[in-house]
Amino acid sequence: MAIGWFYLSSYALSLLGVMCIILTVYWMQLWHGGFAWDGSILMFNYHPVFMVAGSVVIYSAASLVYRLPRSWLGPKLPWKIGHAVLHLLAFVLTVLGLVVVFQFHSHRRTTNLYSLHSWLGIVTVFLFACQWFLGFVVFLLPWVPVWLRGLLKPIHVFFGAIILSLSVASVISGINEKLFFSLNNDTQPYSSLPSEAIFANSTGMLVVVFGLLVLYILLVSSWKRPEPGILSEGQPLLRDGE
Amino acid sequence: MAIGWFYLSSYALSLLGVMCIILTVYWMQLWHGGFAWDGSILMFNYHPVFMVAGSVVIYSAASLVYRLPRSWLGPKLPWKIGHAVLHLLAFVLTVLGLVVVFQFHSHRRTTNLYSLHSWLGIVTVFLFACQWFLGFVVFLLPWVPVWLRGLLKPIHVFFGAIILSLSVASVISGINEKLFFSLNNDTQPYSSLPSEAIFANSTGMLVVVFGLLVLYILLVSSWKRPEPGILSEGQPLLRDGE
Repeated sequence: MAIGWFYLSSYALSLLGVMCIILTVYWMQLWHGGFAWDGSILMFNYHPVFMVAGSVVIYSAASLVYRLPRSWLGPKLPWKIGHAVLHLLAFVLTVLGLVVVFQFHSHRRTTNLYSLHSWLGIVTVFLFACQWFLGFVVFLLPWVPVWLRGLLKPIHVFFGAIILSLSVASVISGINEKLFFSLNNDTQPYSSLPSEAIFANSTGMLVVVFGLLVLYILLVSSWKRPEPGILSEGQPLLRDGE
Repeated sequence: MAIGWFYLSSYALSLLGVMCIILTVYWMQLWHGGFAWDGSILMFNYHPVFMVAGSVVIYSAASLVYRLPRSWLGPKLPWKIGHAVLHLLAFVLTVLGLVVVFQFHSHRRTTNLYSLHSWLGIVTVFLFACQWFLGFVVFLLPWVPVWLRGLLKPIHVFFGAIILSLSVASVISGINEKLFFSLNNDTQPYSSLPSEAIFANSTGMLVVVFGLLVLYILLVSSWKRPEPGILSEGQPLLRDGE
């Protein structure tokens, strides 16, 4: 019953994640002319798609690997490798999301990294890089003692959740910024809520809902890999908090 | 030693919170002409100040009440009341933050609630209201049985952290939006990073750092009220996570 509920929730969450990506593609395709790898505004259009797909959706899938009941049985190493590889894929997509916007700015001779959205975004990508590298060194390479892993694990989980939250905050400020750029004409300003505004605002809110559900499963739900030998296993992470 | 470290961290965190408010006041005072309760843009200037002070800084102080070692001794009720009263103060300030922007829009005949920033902000305030009301009914009024409180506590803690994260995301998108509004002239655009842009971007990043530290203390640190009779007391919330 609990497993059935888990898989139902997983499918619903995956569907929501895929929806977030599809809606972002659709927004760029329908209102901004689609995509091209040519340094033009059509190259910029990959930016929101890569960021939503990489830093939010695939990042979330990678983070939730240990919540799959299948991962609870047998050796942990293959799941650790899966966790690392999926996060690497998320990171590569995120970096591509940066590449397209830097290329577009360079083509248009616009300054890079001036808005608060870009400051927050670049700090988030930097934290993601540190998290991946430290996670690889501490939890995947064999030479770190178990006590040190145990000590660093809550920090790793915390920063995992924080990086996802910062990515969602970057996506929100990015969509907001993009709409102020594109809906700045007098006939159809952002404040008149044209169809593009409603569509992109809703996509942003859907990304927020997706992020909240992922954080809930990650931090509160009891879907955990039981690890023998540790007393308080299987308890929800936040059960004893204030 | 641990208590000394706690108080040092508390003072540093309080200082950082006060700095966030002062820098927001300074931004509005120096670059936007200060404050007035008259429906003009000077009334709008209260908006970022009330939001940073209410929904982020005082909200955080209210959330961290149970982390004070003094709260660990003696009856819990006075601390619960303190937690509720401080959150009510944070909520009143947040609602005032909404009032000033609605009044300003009404005075200027501008549409309300069109940007993604405003959508996220209003949803966050709604969640804050639900969280306060449900927290009051479940944890402060005497008729809810202990088992139900125990069941709802992790949800209450989770939504507490989520509302803070959403408030920070709203502040970030709000500062970004305000800078695109105010730095839109050709001589000194946002993209040329004039002093106001650097100042307000830095204030936004400081709010993010403040929020992260609060979430760390709330979710990971071992500064917890030990509650007798519960086995896994005093353990960091995230100690057993993936």
